[in-house]
Amino acid sequence: MSAYADHIATVKARFDAALAATGFDSVLIYAGQPRVAFLDDNPAPYKVNPLFKYWVPVIESPKSAVFYQPGQKPVVFLFKPRDFWHAEVKTPEEEWQQHVELVVIDSQEKMTDWLGDKIKSAAFIGEDFAEPVASWPVKARNPANLIDHLHFHRAIKTAWEIENMRQANKLAAKAHLAARDAFMAGASELEIHHAYLAAINFRESQVPYNSIVALNEHGAVLHYDVYETSAPEQSRSFLIDAGALYRGYCADITRTYAREEGFFADLIAAMDDAQQSLLGEIKPGINYYELHVSQHLKIAKILSEFGFVKGTAESIYEQGYSSAFFPHGLGHFIGLQVHDVGGFLANDRGDTIARDPRHPFLRLLRDVEEGQVFTIEPGLYVVDQLLEEHADNKDFNWEKIAELRPYGGIRIEDSIVVGKDGNNENLTRDAFAELGS
Amino acid sequence: MSAYADHIATVKARFDAALAATGFDSVLIYAGQPRVAFLDDNPAPYKVNPLFKYWVPVIESPKSAVFYQPGQKPVVFLFKPRDFWHAEVKTPEEEWQQHVELVVIDSQEKMTDWLGDKIKSAAFIGEDFAEPVASWPVKARNPANLIDHLHFHRAIKTAWEIENMRQANKLAAKAHLAARDAFMAGASELEIHHAYLAAINFRESQVPYNSIVALNEHGAVLHYDVYETSAPEQSRSFLIDAGALYRGYCADITRTYAREEGFFADLIAAMDDAQQSLLGEIKPGINYYELHVSQHLKIAKILSEFGFVKGTAESIYEQGYSSAFFPHGLGHFIGLQVHDVGGFLANDRGDTIARDPRHPFLRLLRDVEEGQVFTIEPGLYVVDQLLEEHADNKDFNWEKIAELRPYGGIRIEDSIVVGKDGNNENLTRDAFAELGS
Ligand SMILES: [Mn+2]
Ligand SMILES: [Mn+2]
Ligand SMILES: [Mn+2]
Ligand SMILES: [Mn+2]
Ligand code: NI
Ligand code: NI
Repeated sequence: MSAYADHIATVKARFDAALAATGFDSVLIYAGQPRVAFLDDNPAPYKVNPLFKYWVPVIESPKSAVFYQPGQKPVVFLFKPRDFWHAEVKTPEEEWQQHVELVVIDSQEKMTDWLGDKIKSAAFIGEDFAEPVASWPVKARNPANLIDHLHFHRAIKTAWEIENMRQANKLAAKAHLAARDAFMAGASELEIHHAYLAAINFRESQVPYNSIVALNEHGAVLHYDVYETSAPEQSRSFLIDAGALYRGYCADITRTYAREEGFFADLIAAMDDAQQSLLGEIKPGINYYELHVSQHLKIAKILSEFGFVKGTAESIYEQGYSSAFFPHGLGHFIGLQVHDVGGFLANDRGDTIARDPRHPFLRLLRDVEEGQVFTIEPGLYVVDQLLEEHADNKDFNWEKIAELRPYGGIRIEDSIVVGKDGNNENLTRDAFAELGS
Repeated sequence: MSAYADHIATVKARFDAALAATGFDSVLIYAGQPRVAFLDDNPAPYKVNPLFKYWVPVIESPKSAVFYQPGQKPVVFLFKPRDFWHAEVKTPEEEWQQHVELVVIDSQEKMTDWLGDKIKSAAFIGEDFAEPVASWPVKARNPANLIDHLHFHRAIKTAWEIENMRQANKLAAKAHLAARDAFMAGASELEIHHAYLAAINFRESQVPYNSIVALNEHGAVLHYDVYETSAPEQSRSFLIDAGALYRGYCADITRTYAREEGFFADLIAAMDDAQQSLLGEIKPGINYYELHVSQHLKIAKILSEFGFVKGTAESIYEQGYSSAFFPHGLGHFIGLQVHDVGGFLANDRGDTIARDPRHPFLRLLRDVEEGQVFTIEPGLYVVDQLLEEHADNKDFNWEKIAELRPYGGIRIEDSIVVGKDGNNENLTRDAFAELGS
């Protein structure tokens, strides 16, 4: 069986279970459609419903849908407008078409005509802000229990999904190297952003999230989303968090570079060691929260060794000092979505795992299992707003922190496929290695 | 009085009249906020409410608002989040701040606290898909009569608005020349798209609409929104429809280029003459519909002279032949929005002008008045879907049409400010002229 055949069989089985558990006969998954801006006629970039692209790698066909009834072949209604305004949507022959009943439609009425009374017993999953979708007589709209069930099991990726993420990482790694070269050549943030996109022939609306392209101090702004159009007088450091998409699957990679040898380059190397040594601790059975804490202790050790804060790793962590430098979560699931769903789900009935107020931004609290894919992205930054509360604390070496401030911060982010007994795959490092980097 | 002072005085007067006519005491214009994708946490690019940026040139501050009560200074609630996730929103000192009461807020509650009971008598204009906005106890949400009143009068631009469009055209013209050079150098559509953006330091989400970057046959797809990543073997022709934004005001420019001298270059020159000769007919008092028909007759003449269709200009137009080659409207208002509002409004009470079924895509049916700004964008394309119905028609020279097909088509689009007695300003040609082109 091919990887895709195996994938769609798994998707079917998961929908069978989810529909059975929630009492629905069938499901209609609408791909979505672009929204126009307020009082305007300009559409926003279209983003496909993730649960639609779970079935078929079709990401640029708004107004399409999948109809699935357990025991039957899934039906893909592929919307191809027939007008002279838009380029014809090409549908090259691809393997997925052999596994579904493909119905090409040029109006949404053709879909509802085909479905007839079947639509009345279907659970609808998708956005329904526009007519005629808003008026379809479906049985239920986005039922939470059905979606939770699906989201819980999506955590375990099929081989086909992992292969797509492997390819997405290769694309992103290639673009990362182009961005690094642009940084080394003294480019502005916007120029680096464009170098990144050009290297892999992506347009901005095709990357899976707003790339973070941060020079110097900007590296300390966690969701930095500005692209300065002129280069700073001196480019000291560069933090880039940017991804790519392959067949609808995401890469999410962060790298940090120093322009010159010295203190900051050494700190990057130490953070890189800390991240890599954490990777060795990932294995089925432990909880992701433990990894987060373990990473905190390693960062606390760096804080101590580099002289930013006094104390042992344990005391630095226990007093919450490391959270001032590493305020965000260690990582998150990744797959069809950059922040893939289900990180807080305790089971497929929708019960959630309570967050720890000590680590409020951690998005993943589940036990580690074989076949999960998640990021590991420790960071260390000078975030003045967080350091404020320690202003009078003698354990903090403010001179040393001031030395780091002009560099912003460091984050290193890889995507890991959990294997048996710690035989994990690092999609990101492997992609860079293939490029000789 | 400065241009902006004059502008905001006009905006106030227009709101005074609109509120009086519709019976509201005051208005709360919400800037909007980004929407996240379905089942996801990734926000779409933020687009400000056009009626918010009508007041102040602030386009990157979601969750802000303007509150205006006739007779009072307008209050601008400028939202600046205080968190360590995002870059601080800079608010350089600008003239508009002297004309409003500026209230910087870091939570939406601060706005509603400030307003107190006043919110209950305000008409709300904006998107309200998120809380707490959805629950604000305003008097009315997006009342159509108030919005129609405002939209009708927005057609007449202030000097400040025209100056902003002048600057937007200069930006876009500069980028157009970079795109032309990339085309001449044999670049792919995506490379040309990136050259365009790089030339003016724009990122893709900052241009006011999806640029159309079409090589060869693609020029005939009216809303072509694909950017091919490899260049065709032979780049014969290039149609680019792309704009820019300056202080929230739009440019919308189309140019068509031939790679070599000859038949297609001659046809571009003829279309350029036809467009320019139409510009001389624009004057207050005539109806935009008449311009559309006049342009059709000029294009019909070209169709005849180049031998695409047999007949006189009149017979070609009357038989509907020219509509097969020039199917879209002559143009539209432009300003805060690319397709600026009010093109079908007969008056400020919201009555609409009936569309002519013969020219269903014409977006502007109003009488021409001094101070209006609109585009003039004639086109001539080989659109097979439209030619189909004439397949057996002997008046059509199919060999000649086949000769044109590989070039796609031609469109030439300028933005015109209507002056007194035909003393119009061509924002687009002036911008190119300033660049020596
Ligand atoms: Mn991440
Ligand atoms: Mn990331
Ligand atoms: Mn236009
Ligand atoms: Mn245009
Ligand atoms: Ni953010
Ligand atoms: Ni379109």
